[in-house]
Amino acid sequence: MKPIADIAKLVDISEEDLELYGKYKAKLAPDLWEKVKNRPDGKLILVTAMNPNPAGAGKTLTTIGLSQALNKTGKTTIAALREPSLGPSFGMKGGATGSGQAQILPADEINLHFTGDIHAITAAHNLLAAMIDNHIHHGNALRLNPKKIVWKRAMDMNDRALRNIVIGLGEGNGQAREDGFLITTASEIMAILCLSEDAGDLKQRLSRIIIGYDLDDKPITPADIHAVDAMCVLLKDALKPNLVQTTEGTPVIVHGGPFANIAHGCSSVIGTRLSLKLADYVVTEAGFGADLGAEKFFDIKCRKAGLTPSAAVLVVTVRALKYNGGIPVAQLHEENLDALRAGFANVRRHIENLRSFGVPVVVALNSFVTDTEAEQHAVISMCEGLGADVALSRVWAEGSEGGLDLAAKVIKAAETESSFSFLYENQLPIQEKIETIVKKLYRGSGVHFSKAALQTLRKVEEMGLSHFPVCMAKTPYSFSDQPDQLGAPSDFTISVSEIRISAGAGFLVVLTGSLVTMPGLPKKPAAESVFLTEQGQVEGLA
Amino acid sequence: MKPIADIAKLVDISEEDLELYGKYKAKLAPDLWEKVKNRPDGKLILVTAMNPNPAGAGKTLTTIGLSQALNKTGKTTIAALREPSLGPSFGMKGGATGSGQAQILPADEINLHFTGDIHAITAAHNLLAAMIDNHIHHGNALRLNPKKIVWKRAMDMNDRALRNIVIGLGEGNGQAREDGFLITTASEIMAILCLSEDAGDLKQRLSRIIIGYDLDDKPITPADIHAVDAMCVLLKDALKPNLVQTTEGTPVIVHGGPFANIAHGCSSVIGTRLSLKLADYVVTEAGFGADLGAEKFFDIKCRKAGLTPSAAVLVVTVRALKYNGGIPVAQLHEENLDALRAGFANVRRHIENLRSFGVPVVVALNSFVTDTEAEQHAVISMCEGLGADVALSRVWAEGSEGGLDLAAKVIKAAETESSFSFLYENQLPIQEKIETIVKKLYRGSGVHFSKAALQTLRKVEEMGLSHFPVCMAKTPYSFSDQPDQLGAPSDFTISVSEIRISAGAGFLVVLTGSLVTMPGLPKKPAAESVFLTEQGQVEGLA
Repeated sequence: MKPIADIAKLVDISEEDLELYGKYKAKLAPDLWEKVKNRPDGKLILVTAMNPNPAGAGKTLTTIGLSQALNKTGKTTIAALREPSLGPSFGMKGGATGSGQAQILPADEINLHFTGDIHAITAAHNLLAAMIDNHIHHGNALRLNPKKIVWKRAMDMNDRALRNIVIGLGEGNGQAREDGFLITTASEIMAILCLSEDAGDLKQRLSRIIIGYDLDDKPITPADIHAVDAMCVLLKDALKPNLVQTTEGTPVIVHGGPFANIAHGCSSVIGTRLSLKLADYVVTEAGFGADLGAEKFFDIKCRKAGLTPSAAVLVVTVRALKYNGGIPVAQLHEENLDALRAGFANVRRHIENLRSFGVPVVVALNSFVTDTEAEQHAVISMCEGLGADVALSRVWAEGSEGGLDLAAKVIKAAETESSFSFLYENQLPIQEKIETIVKKLYRGSGVHFSKAALQTLRKVEEMGLSHFPVCMAKTPYSFSDQPDQLGAPSDFTISVSEIRISAGAGFLVVLTGSLVTMPGLPKKPAAESVFLTEQGQVEGLA
Repeated sequence: MKPIADIAKLVDISEEDLELYGKYKAKLAPDLWEKVKNRPDGKLILVTAMNPNPAGAGKTLTTIGLSQALNKTGKTTIAALREPSLGPSFGMKGGATGSGQAQILPADEINLHFTGDIHAITAAHNLLAAMIDNHIHHGNALRLNPKKIVWKRAMDMNDRALRNIVIGLGEGNGQAREDGFLITTASEIMAILCLSEDAGDLKQRLSRIIIGYDLDDKPITPADIHAVDAMCVLLKDALKPNLVQTTEGTPVIVHGGPFANIAHGCSSVIGTRLSLKLADYVVTEAGFGADLGAEKFFDIKCRKAGLTPSAAVLVVTVRALKYNGGIPVAQLHEENLDALRAGFANVRRHIENLRSFGVPVVVALNSFVTDTEAEQHAVISMCEGLGADVALSRVWAEGSEGGLDLAAKVIKAAETESSFSFLYENQLPIQEKIETIVKKLYRGSGVHFSKAALQTLRKVEEMGLSHFPVCMAKTPYSFSDQPDQLGAPSDFTISVSEIRISAGAGFLVVLTGSLVTMPGLPKKPAAESVFLTEQGQVEGLA
């Protein structure tokens, strides 16, 4: 690792704009934006993926490797990534900092407490929750309806026992009521932090959150209970982007990590906009497959932040193709060209979808040691059959060297004229926005709305929030809302069970099926395999 | 503020031993201890107090001011303080970084997330809790009794609605059971972190925590559920002491902040032992009045860490004297020499008690603008009547200049031969340890043990833990267990309602009366008055 001040110099950030957190991490001072905001923007590249097998497709890995490769070709490049959450790191997933020759460093510190951003969001979230129950306890002047408080509590941990709880039991302990905990990354504050342009915008958004309803069903906000300023105080440093480096010394902004279902799943707008002023190329990723991640990246993040993507990289793997072709996880290491060809229907649809946004697409075939040459050739020739640029990516084994072909094709794509457009316009009614996504992207035949969802839609209209974009919460394994409908299903109906209003983030969360916002730990959690060496190094996390 | 690297140089710490957190905060690398451990120790000065009025007596202020004054006299001095907790900062108290000309800086950052230590403890605490319920959910191989889990969850917030809760409700969400949240500073992990000598000791202590009992009533530990290593990983940086500075550039170690009732209420052993190797004088404080704070400092912290205090400073105020003389809070600003003299009985007893530990005592009269000259003279002459050294302290208004007389008297006291001894020996039976404290220090006539407490004492014997010291949890406002028995009550009985085993920290918590381990917010919390300025500065916190 190089000192972070040296990494900063690569993109012309001087030491006075760095707030150091040790030698290898720094926050970027808000003044930096003032200095660079009038510069032209670099090219914005989105890394997204086909519907993956349960082990994932390697978006983070590809984002890091591609940024290293672009840098090597002479294009100054910054990767813009999300911050890992402790819950998944100690649960199923392990860390989220890439692997092999395409990692971000210092991996353990990024995977653990990093610069404290997620802890700050937890604190702000729970201060608001405590002030709500405290308000009720001390006389409830606002006449908050204890049965209609929608603001839960938050913790950065996978703890299923906290999903549904009863609080306030016993003498002197406030009003007894049902409640629950979200994982912090699912907090609306995380989504808000990621969409805010600056401290003033953050404050405005926090003040618009709907925490519950009063006895007349009127929405109540953090502003009503005088919590907004204290929340801003707790979040003041979390709002500043974090600078780290890749294994090859490419600068990386790691900032914000919103849940990809209940939120939009992209790193911060502040970090992305700043990166675009500092580099020729900015490579960023969005959560889940392109049906969810890319759509929300385009229709929510790009729309709200005024960003124009220059190209999209669709990460595919031989394993995910065979999985989408019907092969169970245990047999994915075996060559199977028929399953591969069947699964390609999934890739074809994602390519079509991405092109429908007017964005050039490059397919990155993320190479695995279990892939056979015949399989990799088949994927490449099927992509070429669609007229799609495709590159074999070996960044895990080779770092930037393994991504040079991909980088060249990305540069070629990004230098063509982009005709980016949203899938739907703001003024379209909410129901039609949802139907557009379902019919045009998912290729379903229609949408069924529950009674509760329709009720919320009426409320949304009354409240004048129909201009909000929608944030789809759906299984990431299928275009449909059924995780076992792999490949390219059609003729299905999407069932909308519930719609939640994220008035601070500025979108409506559309829930299809049930949504878990607090994960659980598996039978043998990753936490059991993590340890410190005699020398104080972390093993077993990244 | 000076760069923290310059402050470090004052006590011969080189830059390679600093882990910077911005320009003005640093953690001290564990290697530093290896370099200095064979040096002789400096003098250890405890700052404690009489039983205060509800606004407090000014221990932190005096600790900071005295350290500045000692430094000015040419004695290299470090102050060793506790870390503030977010809960009280946003609740009743505001920040905990001193005030006036005796503050620690950067006050706002220390009062907010600081270097993340408390957040790390919260995470380690809740990872353990999640792993316990996860173990039960996935088959409960250890046969944990869900009704006998004593490990609660933790949050650094004042949130009374979380004191008593029911968790695990609903399909797939684990075992339904009663639970509750502690404020993080009341977590046994905080006490453990503060008593640990090094990373190895931390690990041993964590592995001994009793999290609950199995169906045969056998204690279960974090080691049994394989959580210890992951907890150590989460705590690895929190274990390193934090270096900051006072308003006059005196070095300060701010590290650890255990609750003063359910724990021993002193900053970390690691920080204190390191400071003693680096400075001529180390000034530290202990929570609450001397009946609780000094006793636990001597009998728990000094015993466990092998420390010998050279002198104790007893902070008194004219206001606290009048309060102990029976004057209500609203009238404390009015001169009242009779009440002052009546309240002096409290001071006299604390001086006697401190002397009984073989430690020289200096009284610091912490000056307030509402004090009259006659009142201050009366206090000074009453102290002198007891043969006690006494100094008027004006460190709030004048910084070190206002503490030079106190510093001179502290140096004189510390240079006399100390004959420090504990109040009781390890081998004394637990009941007799408690009786010794009650009769010799509190001056009560006896102790009443509840049936539950006696049951726990039998369990303690069976488990072979009778050598543990006791950690008294009692009201800080009275020598008795009744907060309205002010002054120097006698002939009272102390009622022990419950005894809790902190097997990792290595003490038994003796509860007298009910104990709140999760505070609530007041009707108008401090959070409502905190805000960020246009320039991003925090106002209203410190």
